[in-house]
Amino acid sequence: MMNKQLSVAVSGQGLYDITAQVASEVSRSGIEDGLATLFIQHTSASLLIQENADPAVQTDLKNWLNRLVPENDLLYTHVDEGPDDMPAHIKAALTAVNLSIPIMQGALTLGVWQGIYLWEHRHRQGAQRQLILNIQSG
Amino acid sequence: MMNKQLSVAVSGQGLYDITAQVASEVSRSGIEDGLATLFIQHTSASLLIQENADPAVQTDLKNWLNRLVPENDLLYTHVDEGPDDMPAHIKAALTAVNLSIPIMQGALTLGVWQGIYLWEHRHRQGAQRQLILNIQSG
Amino acid sequence: MMNKQLSVAVSGQGLYDITAQVASEVSRSGIEDGLATLFIQHTSASLLIQENADPAVQTDLKNWLNRLVPENDLLYTHVDEGPDDMPAHIKAALTAVNLSIPIMQGALTLGVWQGIYLWEHRHRQGAQRQLILNIQSG
Repeated sequence: MMNKQLSVAVSGQGLYDITAQVASEVSRSGIEDGLATLFIQHTSASLLIQENADPAVQTDLKNWLNRLVPENDLLYTHVDEGPDDMPAHIKAALTAVNLSIPIMQGALTLGVWQGIYLWEHRHRQGAQRQLILNIQSG
Repeated sequence: MMNKQLSVAVSGQGLYDITAQVASEVSRSGIEDGLATLFIQHTSASLLIQENADPAVQTDLKNWLNRLVPENDLLYTHVDEGPDDMPAHIKAALTAVNLSIPIMQGALTLGVWQGIYLWEHRHRQGAQRQLILNIQSG
Repeated sequence: MMNKQLSVAVSGQGLYDITAQVASEVSRSGIEDGLATLFIQHTSASLLIQENADPAVQTDLKNWLNRLVPENDLLYTHVDEGPDDMPAHIKAALTAVNLSIPIMQGALTLGVWQGIYLWEHRHRQGAQRQLILNIQSG
């Protein structure tokens, strides 16, 4: 039924809660029953649905993935774009480039503790990340 | 065309085969050509499509992920909900919260060896996990 | 609006760029606004969207995942189909079985540096992998 471009301001590594932004677009679409699909147009940031209650969950997720995919690993040959670039690509490959969430009674059917996050994997400050939100009716 | 809530009974860590339950809903929908999307409303259980032939594959997947994401890791600060909680969030982040499978000739287009699984990451016995199945026509 | 079966020739481990093949089907569908969903019917190969500029990114991704999920790990009990089989299942579980990409102005809304890849995890030469492409209008 529609595609909408969304922009998210980020400033360094971490999880950015975009639940309200996505929910607002779903509400504006007026669609009662359907499917919302979110797609990120980047390869060094990704999408995640995770617990929104205790911020420590987000800290632990970030620290765990940083330990699994460290910077300055001698394995990397793609090193021209900085020490955080190749780890960012690997982290993006291990997480999601798209998320699909059914819509019922005009709202996203997220579980009670589920939030939608943009996971930024690079350090640079003051960047914009681009998403496309597709909403199908039915 | 429709959204349907599904409930899956689980009892501790492991892969629960939900292929028949999903296939049955697709069949009942009467849709010949389309797209089925499954969404899980939790952050400590996830969805997976994997080999359904040799049960050893499922055992190895579970044991491998348990070794990659162990309990009682000193990195974790989110520890209030038990030693299996933060590992469950990480495992869910590394696997899928949604799956989309095309429908042709009235059936899911799964490969010969593909089964759909709910991957429970927590130990507790006798829980129910909630899914939403969205089916689009065309 | 349609489902289309696609076949991809592979010959050993690595990332196979299928962007042009998918884009061509989207173009042929004549759909201006919608959603393309790609599904792979296998459990030892998977789908990935990653950087298409520097081939070293693809080499590093492959080498990193091979180190994380090595062959001949004593943990594996599913060993009858060769040393590359169980690692292939684990790698497929950690990456994607489906991808959904919005369509705008008749084209996939991939970011500037995004390519669509089939990630083959097995060594055998001269195989065919089967995909289904679903395109929804709207």
